[in-house]
Amino acid sequence: MRNRDILAAIESVLIARKSAPADSSYVASLYAKGNHKILQKLGEEAIETVLAASTGDKKAIVHETADLWFHTLVMLAHHDIAVQDILDELHKRFG
Amino acid sequence: MRNRDILAAIESVLIARKSAPADSSYVASLYAKGNHKILQKLGEEAIETVLAASTGDKKAIVHETADLWFHTLVMLAHHDIAVQDILDELHKRFG
Amino acid sequence: MRNRDILAAIESVLIARKSAPADSSYVASLYAKGNHKILQKLGEEAIETVLAASTGDKKAIVHETADLWFHTLVMLAHHDIAVQDILDELHKRFG
Amino acid sequence: MRNRDILAAIESVLIARKSAPADSSYVASLYAKGNHKILQKLGEEAIETVLAASTGDKKAIVHETADLWFHTLVMLAHHDIAVQDILDELHKRFG
Repeated sequence: MRNRDILAAIESVLIARKSAPADSSYVASLYAKGNHKILQKLGEEAIETVLAASTGDKKAIVHETADLWFHTLVMLAHHDIAVQDILDELHKRFG
Repeated sequence: MRNRDILAAIESVLIARKSAPADSSYVASLYAKGNHKILQKLGEEAIETVLAASTGDKKAIVHETADLWFHTLVMLAHHDIAVQDILDELHKRFG
Repeated sequence: MRNRDILAAIESVLIARKSAPADSSYVASLYAKGNHKILQKLGEEAIETVLAASTGDKKAIVHETADLWFHTLVMLAHHDIAVQDILDELHKRFG
Repeated sequence: MRNRDILAAIESVLIARKSAPADSSYVASLYAKGNHKILQKLGEEAIETVLAASTGDKKAIVHETADLWFHTLVMLAHHDIAVQDILDELHKRFG
């Protein structure tokens, strides 16, 4: 599966879970707890990523960065922002 | 340009700048300052993203999330980790 | 000067600067920029403290922790919360 | 109880627990998990403080700031740094 398909596939799942019962999955429970809880998780994963990268442990960096990006995707879905908007912004400013 | 091309294009630029003079670009100066400075920036952008999302301002969220992802890409390049490794991890765990 | 005097002295200065012109001091300019900017600084200093402590460099830990506490004091003053309230809470829960 | 007594009292407890069994208290278990876990908690409490202060909820700010300072005290004790060193640094730079 190609990159854009991976991000798009996860985004589709995240959007679908916005209307699922709170107890049906980790993500559905996170949506139910609201924006504050989602941001708390995003912040925690950022701290974990910084700590992993401060030691230089590659396996830990990959693990924590995936967690950070995943929770960023949850936050974006919660705010009805498409992943494509972030990629377009990256392209415009850094591409 | 498709998503994976955007991430791949930025990654190529970031790798190329690892061997560029420190004063040739923002990213080259960041590499020269080292891992600690890169992580400081990554952490700062995470705080900015959390603050933007706490207000719900979509334009600010897009801007800050792009900054967060960009500095994540710089950190990955610094540690010689491919973006594809993160996408593969996301696919394996959340795809 | 004893601890409580140090915290009280800084608190007094921080409260006095709330009504000072924005260009009269670092703290006055921070108040003028508002809550978002104060929290951005508090978050940045937290990241710096975590990074300093991840290396174990004692001098850096002291420096960054002082910065973190100072910006916490600025945040408290901005929200009209007395340092004593934090100390009372610490005493109630952990003392 | 005065401020300095509160901080000193908590510091005494934190130092005493460094030699206690890991399962004897929350703090003893945190020491046993090591520096990385302590910094993870410190970072999480910083994010919580920023989120509480972004809403302006005073009760939440007091609660989260106490948590942040408490985990800062744990980090300092772990690195054998006296609270007085932080207060002296604050006095020197901001007093």
